[in-house]
Amino acid sequence: MPAAPSIANSVTVRLVLPARPTAVSEMMSLIERAGGVVTGLDVTGSAQARMRVDLTMLTRDPEHAEAIVETMRTVEGAEIGKVSDRTFLMHLGGKLSVESKVPIRTRDDLSLVYTPGVARVCTAIADNPEDARRLTIKRNTVAVVTDGTAVLGLGDIGPLAALPVMEGKAALFKRFADIDAFPLCLDTTDVEEIIRTVKAIAPGFAGINLEDISAPRCFEVEARLREELDIPVFHDDQHGTAIVALAALRNALRVVGKRLEEVRLVMSGAGAAGTAILKLLLHAGARHVVVADIDGVVHRGRADVLSGEHPNHAWIAEHTNPDNVSGTLSRAVRGADVFLGVSAPNILTEEDVASMAPGAVVFAMANPVPEIDPEIAARHAEVVATGRSDFANQINNVLVFPGVFRGLIDAASRHVTMDVLLAAADALADVVTDEERNATYIVPSVFHPDVTTVVADAVRRAVAGTEHHPGADDA
Amino acid sequence: MPAAPSIANSVTVRLVLPARPTAVSEMMSLIERAGGVVTGLDVTGSAQARMRVDLTMLTRDPEHAEAIVETMRTVEGAEIGKVSDRTFLMHLGGKLSVESKVPIRTRDDLSLVYTPGVARVCTAIADNPEDARRLTIKRNTVAVVTDGTAVLGLGDIGPLAALPVMEGKAALFKRFADIDAFPLCLDTTDVEEIIRTVKAIAPGFAGINLEDISAPRCFEVEARLREELDIPVFHDDQHGTAIVALAALRNALRVVGKRLEEVRLVMSGAGAAGTAILKLLLHAGARHVVVADIDGVVHRGRADVLSGEHPNHAWIAEHTNPDNVSGTLSRAVRGADVFLGVSAPNILTEEDVASMAPGAVVFAMANPVPEIDPEIAARHAEVVATGRSDFANQINNVLVFPGVFRGLIDAASRHVTMDVLLAAADALADVVTDEERNATYIVPSVFHPDVTTVVADAVRRAVAGTEHHPGADDA
Repeated sequence: MPAAPSIANSVTVRLVLPARPTAVSEMMSLIERAGGVVTGLDVTGSAQARMRVDLTMLTRDPEHAEAIVETMRTVEGAEIGKVSDRTFLMHLGGKLSVESKVPIRTRDDLSLVYTPGVARVCTAIADNPEDARRLTIKRNTVAVVTDGTAVLGLGDIGPLAALPVMEGKAALFKRFADIDAFPLCLDTTDVEEIIRTVKAIAPGFAGINLEDISAPRCFEVEARLREELDIPVFHDDQHGTAIVALAALRNALRVVGKRLEEVRLVMSGAGAAGTAILKLLLHAGARHVVVADIDGVVHRGRADVLSGEHPNHAWIAEHTNPDNVSGTLSRAVRGADVFLGVSAPNILTEEDVASMAPGAVVFAMANPVPEIDPEIAARHAEVVATGRSDFANQINNVLVFPGVFRGLIDAASRHVTMDVLLAAADALADVVTDEERNATYIVPSVFHPDVTTVVADAVRRAVAGTEHHPGADDA
Repeated sequence: MPAAPSIANSVTVRLVLPARPTAVSEMMSLIERAGGVVTGLDVTGSAQARMRVDLTMLTRDPEHAEAIVETMRTVEGAEIGKVSDRTFLMHLGGKLSVESKVPIRTRDDLSLVYTPGVARVCTAIADNPEDARRLTIKRNTVAVVTDGTAVLGLGDIGPLAALPVMEGKAALFKRFADIDAFPLCLDTTDVEEIIRTVKAIAPGFAGINLEDISAPRCFEVEARLREELDIPVFHDDQHGTAIVALAALRNALRVVGKRLEEVRLVMSGAGAAGTAILKLLLHAGARHVVVADIDGVVHRGRADVLSGEHPNHAWIAEHTNPDNVSGTLSRAVRGADVFLGVSAPNILTEEDVASMAPGAVVFAMANPVPEIDPEIAARHAEVVATGRSDFANQINNVLVFPGVFRGLIDAASRHVTMDVLLAAADALADVVTDEERNATYIVPSVFHPDVTTVVADAVRRAVAGTEHHPGADDA
């Protein structure tokens, strides 16, 4: 799959053209032949012999954009000016601001917002800590925490370079759930140090969203923080992905008329996302699951399981693969009903998909390049989904984390349980109605107006069923 | 000084009154006799025999408000409804929000703000970390960090109860310097743990404002962070106070016609603020300073200095009190030109002030109750200042920290130096013109439109004079 020209690589070129009739059409056809897609042409100034133009176009990547601009120089009389990158323009100065919700216009305002008035508010919280959920930002604030070790497909790029992603995440929290989220990019990759830091900053937050921390460290960071903090801790790469994958699978199985308890599932990938999906699938009732990684199917006799070097693989061997089969991924998918990939590009062949059971479901979620080209998979599978926005059925965490946190913090929850994750998945699946559901619509659009509320309500009910504590009601 | 009714203790009482002509005036005179000050009376509903009224009044404190409400019940036919506290209403739900500066309306917007577009921005920063000051919130973001151990006059109330103050501080950063500040209230009081935590969260911030950390821990926290971080670290309780005190003193000495190098200064208080003021005074050229604390004047023969148990006191003994005098504060102020108190209520007597040199300057900055009632001090001193907003010459940090941080982060500064502090103080003093300056106007109003810009410009110039590094120009 060669990358298509996309908005993420959109550039605006400021240029001057001679005012001869053919200049614009020459320019346009040059760009088209070079593979660019013109999306805007604004004449910003004109004189008798020349005109000034802002031309915006989609390109495949920065090198492609540069090549197109070089081609544009060949138009006779054209002068190429500033080339702006729309993505960089969007990020200039950062994507978040911290605003004051209270007016500070007079000395009286000052005495209410700050000293001396604020002292009484502090005293009230010191006397009754639960009041912090009424009288401070703790009520609605989530920390987006990363160490920058597993950022998008970029890997370990460090905390500073991870900041644009965390800002984007915070912007999505606001847009989709009206949650005030703030990014904290940690200058450490040490498990104990990350845990200590998050515990230290926790008092002012209603929840912690861990993000892009590499496996296996992310498992321990999350498990320990869940144990030691009294606010919910959610690792989106694990649990967000698990919830949206299960929701999509619920609907995919409805489309093909099969039941989760009965289908044979093959997963590819035993990392953070894979393990979380597996655990949620089992909690939801799946019984026939086999997991493969780069070394083939995980089974109880495999060296890394026997040696105990990978506690995670040992757990997988114990809880999956009841017949204890071994072998390649290719062999495992033969006759399987469902393939779920969160692993690596192009590891599933067309023949593999063709060998699956009738009514096969293929989720090829590796990003940015899936386990198999979805168009090829669709030749044999009945339902196909990916993590990409340019195909149908995008398995996108944005469908999940805003509603999950909205529900958790409105319920003043202290924990995230498997039941909460399951409730969120089922609620998300049910946003797609029986009338709407089909092989190319198994998850709603991220802009579907009900998604956040429906997921949040389900989470709130699930929390209410398991947690009882002061403060939950008036929060 | 008994507290006066104030806006910080303003309540609104919802009540129903009989519609007889005298009911309102009876109510008003009752409140007046009880010491309340009515500031608003809204009739929100009326029928033939009754009317519904929202009555807002200033009170001295919550007990006073309660007593007045009890008195109000004695008006015949009156029914008292909900009593709302204006301060608490103002703080409800917290005082800050985190907003997205970029629109997220379409899938295209999503691809620019988040994946896949954001990946190129991350890569750019990974390649050139200085780009974070252009492409992320680091450019304009300050962390307001506390451990909740020395909050206002309330002492060690813990991180959660300190949050309303830190939110207020962040709101002031926004209001006065358009800086995005975010509060981090730490669940630890351990010096090493605080240092580790601040270092861990530092990548996403352009500066650190330490707040309300008790002495002597605050000295080490600040010194170590300054050494180990490459962004400016500023402890407002120390350096903010020192800057505004020096600025006010510059103008007070102009009013009385004396020079800093020549005056005899007596300070009361050797804590965080006192030590910072002392160091800045010495850096500015003061030569005759004596510091007293609860045990009297600090001198080289004092037990705590000799034993080395208080390194801070040893430093003071070494750098002040050239004649090595000992004795009480009372004795020290005899003949002195300036008294600067950041210590405790009512420790300076009228006789003490009367014993000072002609044209005496008294800064009684203890909060909320000053070292001496400013009205009493003014009987003998020519210039009097306090930390209170209900007297002339309020020594208020709000005059300082917004402009200082604006200057520091615009200059992409890595350090705070004594020269920066001095430049800020001198610039702030000069906001008051020769025409304006008099004994009751030695500092500008916090709402003076030029304060932030003038201080920021001075800081930026001072940084430019001492730091040269990439990124400072294009920040």
